[in-house]
Amino acid sequence: MQFLQFLNLNKQFLSSLIPKTPKQELFEVQEQEKMEKGSKRWGFRANEDPNSASGLSIRGVLYSLMQNIDAGDERPTIPLGHGDPSAFPCFRTSLSAEDAIVDALRSADFNSYSPTTAGISPARRAIAEYLSRDLSYKLSPDDVYVTAGCVQAIEVALNVLARPGANILLPRPGFPIYEARADFCNLEVRHFDLLPEQGWEVDLDAVEALADENTVAMVIINPGNPCGSVFSYRHLKKVAETAKKLGILVIADEVYGHLTFGSNPFVPMGEFGSIVPVLTLGSISKRWIVPGWRLGWLVTTDPSGILRKTKIVEGIKGYCNISTEPTTFIQGAISHILEQTKEDFFVKIINILRQASDICYARIKEIPCITCPHKPDGSMFLMAKLDLLQLEDINDDMDFCFKLAQEESVIILPGEK
Amino acid sequence: MQFLQFLNLNKQFLSSLIPKTPKQELFEVQEQEKMEKGSKRWGFRANEDPNSASGLSIRGVLYSLMQNIDAGDERPTIPLGHGDPSAFPCFRTSLSAEDAIVDALRSADFNSYSPTTAGISPARRAIAEYLSRDLSYKLSPDDVYVTAGCVQAIEVALNVLARPGANILLPRPGFPIYEARADFCNLEVRHFDLLPEQGWEVDLDAVEALADENTVAMVIINPGNPCGSVFSYRHLKKVAETAKKLGILVIADEVYGHLTFGSNPFVPMGEFGSIVPVLTLGSISKRWIVPGWRLGWLVTTDPSGILRKTKIVEGIKGYCNISTEPTTFIQGAISHILEQTKEDFFVKIINILRQASDICYARIKEIPCITCPHKPDGSMFLMAKLDLLQLEDINDDMDFCFKLAQEESVIILPGEK
Ligand SMILES: Cc1ncc(COP(=O)(O)O)c(C=O)c1O
Ligand SMILES: Cc1ncc(COP(=O)(O)O)c(C=O)c1O
Repeated sequence: MQFLQFLNLNKQFLSSLIPKTPKQELFEVQEQEKMEKGSKRWGFRANEDPNSASGLSIRGVLYSLMQNIDAGDERPTIPLGHGDPSAFPCFRTSLSAEDAIVDALRSADFNSYSPTTAGISPARRAIAEYLSRDLSYKLSPDDVYVTAGCVQAIEVALNVLARPGANILLPRPGFPIYEARADFCNLEVRHFDLLPEQGWEVDLDAVEALADENTVAMVIINPGNPCGSVFSYRHLKKVAETAKKLGILVIADEVYGHLTFGSNPFVPMGEFGSIVPVLTLGSISKRWIVPGWRLGWLVTTDPSGILRKTKIVEGIKGYCNISTEPTTFIQGAISHILEQTKEDFFVKIINILRQASDICYARIKEIPCITCPHKPDGSMFLMAKLDLLQLEDINDDMDFCFKLAQEESVIILPGEK
Repeated sequence: MQFLQFLNLNKQFLSSLIPKTPKQELFEVQEQEKMEKGSKRWGFRANEDPNSASGLSIRGVLYSLMQNIDAGDERPTIPLGHGDPSAFPCFRTSLSAEDAIVDALRSADFNSYSPTTAGISPARRAIAEYLSRDLSYKLSPDDVYVTAGCVQAIEVALNVLARPGANILLPRPGFPIYEARADFCNLEVRHFDLLPEQGWEVDLDAVEALADENTVAMVIINPGNPCGSVFSYRHLKKVAETAKKLGILVIADEVYGHLTFGSNPFVPMGEFGSIVPVLTLGSISKRWIVPGWRLGWLVTTDPSGILRKTKIVEGIKGYCNISTEPTTFIQGAISHILEQTKEDFFVKIINILRQASDICYARIKEIPCITCPHKPDGSMFLMAKLDLLQLEDINDDMDFCFKLAQEESVIILPGEK
């Protein structure tokens, strides 16, 4: 089955998209060859792991797509393959969030390192309270590790679990930084499918079939990137029960938490923390449209304390101790941001996201060869199905995306990336 | 030889210093034993590497020292074992640096992810220009990778060099996060001494003796933590020549760059980049007294382009792509901060550091059993020698520090940590 991704707003993976001309490349190769002899006497070479890991990102694909655009085409490029809403004025963050940052900075109380690398106490407390609002139990500030965005929370979680021989179950389609980070810390990746006909729910039979005694965790992204799905209470409970049966923990990436506009309300995975221990990952990047602020969290939503007993908590602390920490004055502002942001800001953002999604869905309906198996219920993405039988001279999703870029200057992503 | 560290301002390593009472610990052990059986059915356990790596920090020592303070002693604790100057009003950062952050934030131009994970272009350009001021050649913005503080620059550098079997030469005494990060990425550590009688210069004979065909780099910290030394032009040139002879690169940690008040001016290691490729690490944490802002850099000061030819540059890009990035609006402010900070701010800070160092040095002179082999010329630290022969009932530096904490509520650090 061939899929296409629209409206993928992950600018993260567009990074270093500086196009190289073939001439430049040739020059570099020649220069390299010329100098290779001279550099032989140096005893260092690069560790190739970070590169092979980062090659797993969708950047490579986007880069090639951009290369493919016809320079003679005068129409502007329509970049539906990525994006970052924060650049658009209608997505400007709330003024009160900005004010909170300015106040924290001007106080000069937050210019120091955090006293603990898990974050400053008021920030940990505020995040615990923010997440507890949606839970039937109360989190403690000690459950919270403030991170430099959800990306750092992912890094911490995977490194802590990466014992030799361990494997982790990741969703397909998913968010490629999981694959990249798992690869870099030698955590074997096994993929389970999300089922388009069932609203992109997890294929739990596949999860059971994939897991063995070396499986440590499964990842769910809810609301979903890149499918725009929002899991029901019932489905999340089944995920928890399956994980419990398998003896694995659940990593719940809720970076799009609360960004829902369909029939399913957002239910945090931590609600099932007494069934299975959950590591909840999140940030203010998406709900407040400020990915550049780099403020996120890793939270042990685990009322039974199993993560403490299995030393996962100790591992998290250890990893935080050797890592960089989020900017202190942004931590100093977070309680204000989480507690004081007005409901009308959230409502406005949700309305824009719903509209954008509706327009995208409606337009796709008009295109014969593309169908959307499930109207998005949340997040910022839409996944569509490509019917190759209705098309001539198109081999697969990748081929379609290349030709669309070339002929129409429209950038969308193949679903398999 | 026994050494003592005074005025160590590394709050980084004081993190999570929440004292546990013995009772609490016992309770936790009992609880753990009680629950161990219940947790056996979970298939995950923590990767122990981050913990063993973070155990290499001086935090453990400080924690034990703090535990040793006599609770009945009414005198306030004098914490000369650590600290972070940013907490003291006299060390408040320049108002214009704060203004730059506020302006960048209010512009709403910097709420997005960086378009490249190496940092936004104006930040890379400003850092290249700032460092070029002290060099006889000009750095390009492409040489600069903006990082979340120097700690992240260290992480990037070591991970990129960590090929299987590789080893790295680290200074002793040094900055323990190098040991922790090297340990975590399986980079073998070999220590060379800094020579107290020679102003804490690098023992270059030891460097030559330690290096073999698997040695990839040596680290220097200049101005020095924890010895307060500032290397001369002549010594730095010898370091470069030694590294060249051995075919290894130099990692120059210049996080205390320009914080000098002795006879040697600050000379960046990059000045010898045409002799040996240099990775220059730095940040605004120390010179602007804002460690909580988390803005630093890793720069290839390497006019011959050897780091590109040996694919180190590619490795750096790859590692940045899978890592969290520094806050975008702080990157947006950095050109203003680096270019517009007034000389009188720097002069004021240097004067306070010189005074603090002079007082510490003078007082130590009055103490018979402690001598300072070299008056500090820069940074924020002083290293002193302990004469055990003049003391009764003191086994070593550690024992001295413990008893000083216990009897006098004064915290200083043993030199070996
Ligand atoms: C599923 C998912 N997780 C994590 C992240 C990273 O979020 P942050 O900006 O908080 O690092 C993203 C960003 O696009 C995402 O889509
Ligand atoms: C030698 C050395 N390198 C790096 C750092 C970390 O600096 P930053 O705050 O920029 O991460 C420190 C902090 O104390 C240090 O002493």
